[in-house]
Amino acid sequence: MPPSPVITFTSDFGSREPYVGAVKGAILSACPGGQIVDLTHEIGPHDLLEASYVVANAYACFPTRTVHLVIVDPTVGSGRRAIIASNETHFFVAPDNGVLSLVFAKDPPTIVVSIEADHYFRKPVSPTFHGRDIFGPVVGWLAKGTDIEHFGPVIRDYVRFTVPAPKLVANNRIEGMILHVDRFGNVITNISPEEVRSLTGRDFQPMVFRLGEKEVKAHRAFYSQSKAEELFSVVGSNGYYELAALGKPAARLLEARRGAKIELEIQ
Amino acid sequence: MPPSPVITFTSDFGSREPYVGAVKGAILSACPGGQIVDLTHEIGPHDLLEASYVVANAYACFPTRTVHLVIVDPTVGSGRRAIIASNETHFFVAPDNGVLSLVFAKDPPTIVVSIEADHYFRKPVSPTFHGRDIFGPVVGWLAKGTDIEHFGPVIRDYVRFTVPAPKLVANNRIEGMILHVDRFGNVITNISPEEVRSLTGRDFQPMVFRLGEKEVKAHRAFYSQSKAEELFSVVGSNGYYELAALGKPAARLLEARRGAKIELEIQ
Amino acid sequence: MPPSPVITFTSDFGSREPYVGAVKGAILSACPGGQIVDLTHEIGPHDLLEASYVVANAYACFPTRTVHLVIVDPTVGSGRRAIIASNETHFFVAPDNGVLSLVFAKDPPTIVVSIEADHYFRKPVSPTFHGRDIFGPVVGWLAKGTDIEHFGPVIRDYVRFTVPAPKLVANNRIEGMILHVDRFGNVITNISPEEVRSLTGRDFQPMVFRLGEKEVKAHRAFYSQSKAEELFSVVGSNGYYELAALGKPAARLLEARRGAKIELEIQ
Repeated sequence: MPPSPVITFTSDFGSREPYVGAVKGAILSACPGGQIVDLTHEIGPHDLLEASYVVANAYACFPTRTVHLVIVDPTVGSGRRAIIASNETHFFVAPDNGVLSLVFAKDPPTIVVSIEADHYFRKPVSPTFHGRDIFGPVVGWLAKGTDIEHFGPVIRDYVRFTVPAPKLVANNRIEGMILHVDRFGNVITNISPEEVRSLTGRDFQPMVFRLGEKEVKAHRAFYSQSKAEELFSVVGSNGYYELAALGKPAARLLEARRGAKIELEIQ
Repeated sequence: MPPSPVITFTSDFGSREPYVGAVKGAILSACPGGQIVDLTHEIGPHDLLEASYVVANAYACFPTRTVHLVIVDPTVGSGRRAIIASNETHFFVAPDNGVLSLVFAKDPPTIVVSIEADHYFRKPVSPTFHGRDIFGPVVGWLAKGTDIEHFGPVIRDYVRFTVPAPKLVANNRIEGMILHVDRFGNVITNISPEEVRSLTGRDFQPMVFRLGEKEVKAHRAFYSQSKAEELFSVVGSNGYYELAALGKPAARLLEARRGAKIELEIQ
Repeated sequence: MPPSPVITFTSDFGSREPYVGAVKGAILSACPGGQIVDLTHEIGPHDLLEASYVVANAYACFPTRTVHLVIVDPTVGSGRRAIIASNETHFFVAPDNGVLSLVFAKDPPTIVVSIEADHYFRKPVSPTFHGRDIFGPVVGWLAKGTDIEHFGPVIRDYVRFTVPAPKLVANNRIEGMILHVDRFGNVITNISPEEVRSLTGRDFQPMVFRLGEKEVKAHRAFYSQSKAEELFSVVGSNGYYELAALGKPAARLLEARRGAKIELEIQ
């Protein structure tokens, strides 16, 4: 058993329900001394993309061998599989419904198993709450050091969404999308400086971002470098361009919503 | 001292205040290395029933000897007592105001003590914050292994609410109530398949749930077995019937509120 | 290394973002086995005073040597310094922007260092997320027992806000302000019984609080000592007068907002 097994936990269970506590109890029953860190439980109900975004942008900061549990599970109780994926340094446990797609896009798994070894489960297994009866105990045993292959057969046909990638739509124009709007109203795109360089073969300044009729022309190295009242782009902490405004929610100023198209023109 | 003492913590303190942190500091000051797990701090202000529901539906998943702290305490500072209850495997610490009623209904305590040994308290004791000055340190010492009887005298007249039970109102009709509406809009009743069987002596299908003028006739084994646009009942993870709708909040469709009457007719 | 290093964490990151998790991962990567306790992440965006209030009213409950991380950081990436402050028993890590002012007002630091030893940092350092790349790892190493002076030079010109103090405006009238409105609608002032005594040299009953045209005349020792429908003052758990109402949000009844003036007249 690792000296201080760490488990992160992300879900759409909200923070007023008994569900999060029940899962944590099941984890700690299997893995006394395990340290559980909440990423968030405020994922929108059934919002696989939001969960994927949060986990993909936090997991790599955790110590090697951390187990990341992600439960957004609209088809719990059906035939959908449950999986454990590993990329050598981290483990991910989730329903097999694509919720790990953004993680896999960053860091493809080297092994994925279908969770089938039901002697690890809490009995009886409720068809409406695998978090408590399957995922919790499995995560506990995994964190304690049980080999991934003890939980079930290796599979290759696990579910992945196509992760939206920016594309070149003219020789100096890239079309991307809004991946996330954060609490500060920062508008996070799926376009990184590296992708601009690889798509256009050019240096990327000056540039203008367009959302519908709105334009963002200024570029800053950090938020408070900006002038008041200005919309600007900045390379955010996850490596992607964000649109921001000083002390104001850029998303409101831009009427920007997750999933919307965004265009970047290199000038 | 147990190797990894676990403490759960439920309150109506909200998550923007210093109160939760202060209590946790007091617990850890008494019990270094204790592991504190939040159930929720978003209980509605002074809502004893909601707190009782959350704890009753999560505690049994935790390891033996877990200490469950529950603070919803509108009469803090008055003569109301503070108690520790144990059912041999779990400990519960709370004001003596009935907040543990749903726990006791599931699992009656084998011993309850009135917390009076003030050498465990943080001094001076604020008459407005026993969480920090009494409950926190007591929970810490209890989690560390101090015998329950060291904290005060055994009592038998602790406060319990009458927990609303379903009743037979005709030979095929049961009247129950809505215990909880969860984040997904699932409407959780106080009627279980076991109680239907014991009240009616009959098998329970087909059946219809009625709320006011609305009826729910379909029954499913898990959520996504349902058809879109359909309201259905399902046996939830706590063993009670829930009314649900696929990807939609059934509570809104049914205009269902906690505490409302619900009728089940066996056909 | 202390046996169970405790770290508290307060921020304006919200609870739906990857930011809190990323910082915690960075802390645990530097300090395996560290125990992280959230105070709150629901501080209003960029609200230095609110963060200061929460930390100042919770830190003293934690064990000696606890490290308190506070990240409200509107000028991240600019030339603003990052600091570690210690008052012999507790450590505080924060941007040098005044966010610790209420802590320092209670308990002046005996040493403050500017964090400059970049071999502790996570590389590359993002100019938009020092929480993950600087504060997280520094907190981890500090909690593990690294001497504070290893992180950078001692400074004396760290930033402090003037903390609003109550003042005598006539021989029996004190002008103060509203420091905080809590989840229960309690209106917390910056006036304590000790300050009333030291400013007026008099005993403090009977007294009346005035907010604009509204008056609060009753004084109670604890909340439920009050009568229904009554507004009253009470000495809250942090030692300051609060205005409250039984089972109702006094702030709404008084139309009270943080920062507003309040007058106390001794009669």
